[in-house]
Amino acid sequence: MSTPRTPAYDALCQRHQRIHRLSHLQSIASWDQSAFMPSRGAQARAEALAEMGGLLHQLGTDPALKQLLDEAAQEPLDDFQRASLREMRRVWRSANAVPQRLVEARSLANSHCEHEWRQQRAANDWAGYVENLRPVVRYAREEAQYLSEDSGLSRYDALLDQYEPGMRSAEVDRVFGDLRQWLPGLIRQVMERQAGDSLVHPQGPFPAAAQRALGLDAMKLLGFDFEAGRLDESAHPFCGGVPEDVRMTTRYRDDSFLQSLTGTIHETGHGRYEQNLPREWLGLPVARARSMGLHESQSLSFEMQLAAHPGFAGLLQPLVERHLGRQRGFAADNLHRLMTRVAPGYIRVDADEVTYPAHVILRYEIERPLIEGEIEVEDIPALWDRKMQELLGLDTRGNYKDGCMQDVHWGCGLYGYFPCYTLGAMYAAQWFATMRRERPALDEEIARGELAPVFDWLKDRIWSQGSRWETPELVRRASGEALEPAHFRRHLEARYLG
Amino acid sequence: MSTPRTPAYDALCQRHQRIHRLSHLQSIASWDQSAFMPSRGAQARAEALAEMGGLLHQLGTDPALKQLLDEAAQEPLDDFQRASLREMRRVWRSANAVPQRLVEARSLANSHCEHEWRQQRAANDWAGYVENLRPVVRYAREEAQYLSEDSGLSRYDALLDQYEPGMRSAEVDRVFGDLRQWLPGLIRQVMERQAGDSLVHPQGPFPAAAQRALGLDAMKLLGFDFEAGRLDESAHPFCGGVPEDVRMTTRYRDDSFLQSLTGTIHETGHGRYEQNLPREWLGLPVARARSMGLHESQSLSFEMQLAAHPGFAGLLQPLVERHLGRQRGFAADNLHRLMTRVAPGYIRVDADEVTYPAHVILRYEIERPLIEGEIEVEDIPALWDRKMQELLGLDTRGNYKDGCMQDVHWGCGLYGYFPCYTLGAMYAAQWFATMRRERPALDEEIARGELAPVFDWLKDRIWSQGSRWETPELVRRASGEALEPAHFRRHLEARYLG
Repeated sequence: MSTPRTPAYDALCQRHQRIHRLSHLQSIASWDQSAFMPSRGAQARAEALAEMGGLLHQLGTDPALKQLLDEAAQEPLDDFQRASLREMRRVWRSANAVPQRLVEARSLANSHCEHEWRQQRAANDWAGYVENLRPVVRYAREEAQYLSEDSGLSRYDALLDQYEPGMRSAEVDRVFGDLRQWLPGLIRQVMERQAGDSLVHPQGPFPAAAQRALGLDAMKLLGFDFEAGRLDESAHPFCGGVPEDVRMTTRYRDDSFLQSLTGTIHETGHGRYEQNLPREWLGLPVARARSMGLHESQSLSFEMQLAAHPGFAGLLQPLVERHLGRQRGFAADNLHRLMTRVAPGYIRVDADEVTYPAHVILRYEIERPLIEGEIEVEDIPALWDRKMQELLGLDTRGNYKDGCMQDVHWGCGLYGYFPCYTLGAMYAAQWFATMRRERPALDEEIARGELAPVFDWLKDRIWSQGSRWETPELVRRASGEALEPAHFRRHLEARYLG
Repeated sequence: MSTPRTPAYDALCQRHQRIHRLSHLQSIASWDQSAFMPSRGAQARAEALAEMGGLLHQLGTDPALKQLLDEAAQEPLDDFQRASLREMRRVWRSANAVPQRLVEARSLANSHCEHEWRQQRAANDWAGYVENLRPVVRYAREEAQYLSEDSGLSRYDALLDQYEPGMRSAEVDRVFGDLRQWLPGLIRQVMERQAGDSLVHPQGPFPAAAQRALGLDAMKLLGFDFEAGRLDESAHPFCGGVPEDVRMTTRYRDDSFLQSLTGTIHETGHGRYEQNLPREWLGLPVARARSMGLHESQSLSFEMQLAAHPGFAGLLQPLVERHLGRQRGFAADNLHRLMTRVAPGYIRVDADEVTYPAHVILRYEIERPLIEGEIEVEDIPALWDRKMQELLGLDTRGNYKDGCMQDVHWGCGLYGYFPCYTLGAMYAAQWFATMRRERPALDEEIARGELAPVFDWLKDRIWSQGSRWETPELVRRASGEALEPAHFRRHLEARYLG
């Protein structure tokens, strides 16, 4: 037997495979927690997840890792192994910055807050929610402080960097500042233009079972692999599980089917990214999705670039009619008008793609000072009300349910995530601009249901790359340029004012 | 702060709480594996469960435990703590007897075999199955060998002791030998007596959704706590999850509803035992169910003593009619006749309570020599065919699907478990004999739907006791005597010949 040339690197790979296998159980139990777990199981589940969180943290911060990382850096690694080692070091560094005690305490507080939130949101119970949110924010700030001390970034940037490595709030400010300039005007213009559109509202009720069957058919059309994933229900839709077994969720409303359908299409974009991450590296950090912004760029490629494409409604119509019967409102042009109807609304996940960035800007402008310690949880509702009025002209006073309690994120300790949605929308617009440049017939192909070119492009340029490249390099390789928000503006103007 | 009086015992408790929390994730992921997991997730799940199995084994065999166990034995423990320590030692001893390599290899082989079995059984593919079964048996024998060396028991007894602590095959031989004497005659007598009964067979199809709703109502009637558990579907019904969150499964056939209904009632017995284990000790081995025989005594108390009780069909009839409509076959007396119809059949889980022990004797007489190395997996079909002919007069040649491939047990490495079913039936008969002695109006109460006395008795004497007492002591405290198989015979004779 020959001596291995890269013993330290190989040892690191083995340790990461072990972490990958144990994380699998945590991911499945977390999915179950949101999709199936009955209420009296909550305490035990929270304790189990916290214990596992602590254990994974312990494995990820084992002092031996430091030495292995340093030794591996001296080994004769090829380019891919260098990238893999870079990702191992990134993961190691952020785990090491935070003490295990905090990881466990945070996991418990987040599980508790999220679990209570399900009832509290329904009951519009801000007073109850804020009591659970307070420790969640305290732990998030503490984590931000540790990460900040390690990285030298500001506290908020240190959290943002967990979801969007390399992104800084200065860049977000620049991009969102520009958006804030032209978005309100665009919303107004689009609304004026759409004012005369005749719109037929489909008549419910739409039984959940029929909506589910419709969602499954849409997932099939979009290439989801049902041998390696499922669709279930949860209070807040998400895409969880593991790359080998993706667990998507949605929710159904009797009086409307489009929210669930477009939500399912959104999550399918996340799901296909996960299902198509590079199998041969699976278990290593380099095989993971590059970033949350990139992840959202996939869900929004599916939901906005594809499903809201003028040619796509013609593909949806037969599926809708198969499961929900025939109605005038199901005509393709009407479905398209419904899916591209621009109107300020309370709920982010139900927002059209033009007003959506306003929801994100609002959250960004609250969570950033919250993490930086400039405001407290008690300040959230008033800020929410003011900004909602300012950005979308809506009154949310007293309506916590459809206001600052609508998202699961803050309650489970996700701060620094929201900007990724709008960055994702920008990346998605950039991907499709590139595809059109490379393949002028793209729009006709989509209208004919020839979606393979889109999926092949995404698989080739994004999915199969995992974390092989840092984000700017991945974006450059995929589209020939750095992040260019102008594509997003051009996309909106072309679709809504063109 | 005062010095703790029992530092070693307290440290053991903490370690067991940790194991309990991590096992939680394993239990939920195992449930999901059988109930929801898509096929391409199988490999990753198997690896994750094997990793966790290895980790739990490592935690349970940490060398520090030996010293803590010895130290704790010298501490001023009260009676309860002594019992708790006894159970910790039992768990430790059986974990220590087996090397971690074997635990992981076995887990992988079992997951693989069970996963393949789902298709192979449907395809009657014995040749394919036997290839997966061979390593499962090899590992089970290896485990038996290690346990045998540690305990001095025979190899089969060492496995039996894992499920039914204290039970030996000599005792099983005695009990089953007696059964083999009178059971065939009883089956004949009952069949002759029932030959003239007029029986109305309910006409399907019975939609799965309606059967599910019926099953849920039966579970409610039987006191299952839906805030702390669920009912789902799987190829092989089971009761899994954790005491804080019990996951039951069943399966539905279009053409028949009684199998699923009685199966659900059976699992509800397991479920209520788990849900009512002593909460204040939860996480310690002493809080676990006493044994698998005791566990089956609960499922059979529900399925056979209660559901097949002549007074219980009157409680079921309105539920059946609510969900499946009205039919002549749903009359209470007809339902009771259907549920107590004695007829040799291929499938153990569908068997009536009179022929059921024959299925168990058959399996016992095969698995024992298989583990002792007296026969090989290739010998199973011929032995199965011969014994099925001998015990129940049925021809199973070539029908592996409804023959030796029908159970999940052997494929997942469960050897030494089958006797527990019939021991459970005997215990259940003994519980109800005791209840009747203490409460002469019991049968009228059951017929009136007053089930609380039964549940209170079981909760008080069995569920809430966990593993506080070793089996003979538990049985004596519950019923005033040791295991007495005569109660089972009397029960069958009273119900079927009375």
